Amino acid sequence: MNIKEETTKMKLAAPLLAASTNELRNQALQTIADTLREHADEIFAANAADLAAAQENGVAPAIQKRLKFDEGKLADVINGIRQLISLPDPLQNVSLSRELDEGLTLYRVSCPIGVIGVIFEARPDALVQISTLCIKSGNCAILKGGKETAHTNKALFTLIQKSVIQVGLPAECLLQAELHNEIDELLSCNENVDLLIPRGSNQFVQYIMNNTKIPVMGHADGICHIYADKDYDKAKAIPIIVDAKTQYTAACNAMETLLVSRAIAADLLPDLADTLLANDVRIRGTKEVSGIIPCEVIADDDFKNEYLDLVLAIKLVDDVDEAIAHINHYGSHHTDSILTENESTAARFMQMVDSAGVYQNCSTRFADGFRYGFGAEVGISTGKIHARGPVGLEGLVTYKYKLFGRGQIVGDYASGKSVFHFKDL
Amino acid sequence: MNIKEETTKMKLAAPLLAASTNELRNQALQTIADTLREHADEIFAANAADLAAAQENGVAPAIQKRLKFDEGKLADVINGIRQLISLPDPLQNVSLSRELDEGLTLYRVSCPIGVIGVIFEARPDALVQISTLCIKSGNCAILKGGKETAHTNKALFTLIQKSVIQVGLPAECLLQAELHNEIDELLSCNENVDLLIPRGSNQFVQYIMNNTKIPVMGHADGICHIYADKDYDKAKAIPIIVDAKTQYTAACNAMETLLVSRAIAADLLPDLADTLLANDVRIRGTKEVSGIIPCEVIADDDFKNEYLDLVLAIKLVDDVDEAIAHINHYGSHHTDSILTENESTAARFMQMVDSAGVYQNCSTRFADGFRYGFGAEVGISTGKIHARGPVGLEGLVTYKYKLFGRGQIVGDYASGKSVFHFKDL
Repeated sequence: MNIKEETTKMKLAAPLLAASTNELRNQALQTIADTLREHADEIFAANAADLAAAQENGVAPAIQKRLKFDEGKLADVINGIRQLISLPDPLQNVSLSRELDEGLTLYRVSCPIGVIGVIFEARPDALVQISTLCIKSGNCAILKGGKETAHTNKALFTLIQKSVIQVGLPAECLLQAELHNEIDELLSCNENVDLLIPRGSNQFVQYIMNNTKIPVMGHADGICHIYADKDYDKAKAIPIIVDAKTQYTAACNAMETLLVSRAIAADLLPDLADTLLANDVRIRGTKEVSGIIPCEVIADDDFKNEYLDLVLAIKLVDDVDEAIAHINHYGSHHTDSILTENESTAARFMQMVDSAGVYQNCSTRFADGFRYGFGAEVGISTGKIHARGPVGLEGLVTYKYKLFGRGQIVGDYASGKSVFHFKDL
Repeated sequence: MNIKEETTKMKLAAPLLAASTNELRNQALQTIADTLREHADEIFAANAADLAAAQENGVAPAIQKRLKFDEGKLADVINGIRQLISLPDPLQNVSLSRELDEGLTLYRVSCPIGVIGVIFEARPDALVQISTLCIKSGNCAILKGGKETAHTNKALFTLIQKSVIQVGLPAECLLQAELHNEIDELLSCNENVDLLIPRGSNQFVQYIMNNTKIPVMGHADGICHIYADKDYDKAKAIPIIVDAKTQYTAACNAMETLLVSRAIAADLLPDLADTLLANDVRIRGTKEVSGIIPCEVIADDDFKNEYLDLVLAIKLVDDVDEAIAHINHYGSHHTDSILTENESTAARFMQMVDSAGVYQNCSTRFADGFRYGFGAEVGISTGKIHARGPVGLEGLVTYKYKLFGRGQIVGDYASGKSVFHFKDL
């Protein structure tokens, strides 16, 4: 497949998809849901082939679990599509309407970004979520999933594309890339592709960011922190810390570093260490921490690690300001939480920490499109340009300015013959 | 000056500026306006030195005019600052508030982008506009203006920085880069700088885009079109075309290509050509156009030129769909206008043309922050990520998600012990 040629066709199809009605896009989503349900056996058979290959290749059991696409996963994605159908149209929303002068009216109207490339990990449900989010938001999508689920991806993609064509949307609005070398081809399609959303390892996302002129949305690191303040509630703190570290260690929103106020370190750490050890968490800490609980001693500046594992780094700080400074320096601007009952301390932390998510008294693991009620997400952005945090439909649209006139020219306003009066409508 | 060290200090100052009240930021703006007024003579003297140097170096009179900072320009920038003060606070706006579950509440709150570098042409008023837009939106700004106004920039910057410090904002929130080689240093500060906004020649903007990991907002080309449809009103068409081409040829929103429906070509072109020639416009056209009016003949695909001069390319098309296809292929997604009295043709054009601005029956020259009533602009974006079109205060902010809990953990939602109820507040 020639990716450049295919994306050129998509670029031409993009305005047609952008002009489609919400009704038609919802109809496509409904057809996808029905078709996936009707062809469940085909999908499960394809998935069985992927799982057999994974077992043969000695893929770790935890990862094998993620490759699985069973009745439960099918029900989940169909439920997700239903939620998406129920969400309001993200397109044609007017966010500004202003009369610049008599008979000269400006509107800012939401529209799709255009052609979006999403490169995601081996998780078949991700293919369904991403393609349906793109259709609902009127975007053409190039999908490249992990090779470990190649058969399942192919089965799902074929059914989804068939459904889209069936309702009358352009066939070119979805494209599946199946070969790894097609990623590099895609990176050079900056004339046709408006946005790339890479998901995966730090190294992989960095590679994408460094090798394309296409804007990239996503995150390389997820170095999330919890700061336990002197005014904390210990009964809340321990379960939150354990959840943030252990509930799903491979997630970008899992906590990697715990900062503890010196005032409560002796109160919190021994009990916390017991619970963490019972959960098989390996504790690394500064020399000072090792004076309170047994731990592997690390240097004061060894806090740029994303463990993605049952490993936690701990450091003591004087106060919220030192915690903020540490997080802004060592963190990845993803999600950071403060444990405190003091509202003004919490407000300071949430104002000054420069991250997409700033939390009080809850687990960093809540940073997720589903948990925010977005229906689904295409990724989580740690950048500050365009969308930030979990990216749902709103992050997949932009806007254009429409100006309606009756023959107005700028010369008349420059000479003073006409004057703008700026009335918001 | 070591740009890396300076931007590191700015990064630390950024959360303080982000946390400042609208009242304090407005007070800074008022102090700037007063200080510029009080020190007008100093500014004019510095400007006289720049103008003398320009004359000595044989700078073209048209450009010399742009370098001038006189009583009129001072009044304009002070008026602009007053407008900015009157605009509502772009920060702390809540665009989403949702109860995820009992006692677990999510807010999306606007906040500054952080540290922004703006590189702009030799126009002293631009320095005032950009720095005040950044202060109002709570962003730290690195300013690098054109060398032809070095003395004026220095005088203005010194007064602005003094004013900002005087009201109690951090001194580090503004930085002036004066040397051209500091631009390259700035490009490597991706750890500290969140956004670059380059203004200037196509070549210069391309250079910035190709040599930094920092997100870049702006435009390299401004290849704007007007399409004269078969249902056009000739009395409106000729003044609009002349205005879009001649009112300020060096602007990015000036028209470079005119597309004309074959049905009205013989009606429009002869009269139009007379008016254009009277305005010293050189006409280039396809062979077909040269059969109707005298013109320099160009190839059918010679339409990727941004002339920025009294030169116009003309091509005939069958209908609005051919015009749309031409614009999406040859254009730069900046601003394009249709001349038609047919509302459904206009709607199709404005829906399908993939540009930041799509106009009906008015000049492309209206694409400008002032003319849109934004008070001012930091630039015009032809990208589709983040802000699009003229970028005012709204384009200089992002948001963060604040989540307030009472000890909630994700494990309870994963196990089904707790269930999200998603109530928008």
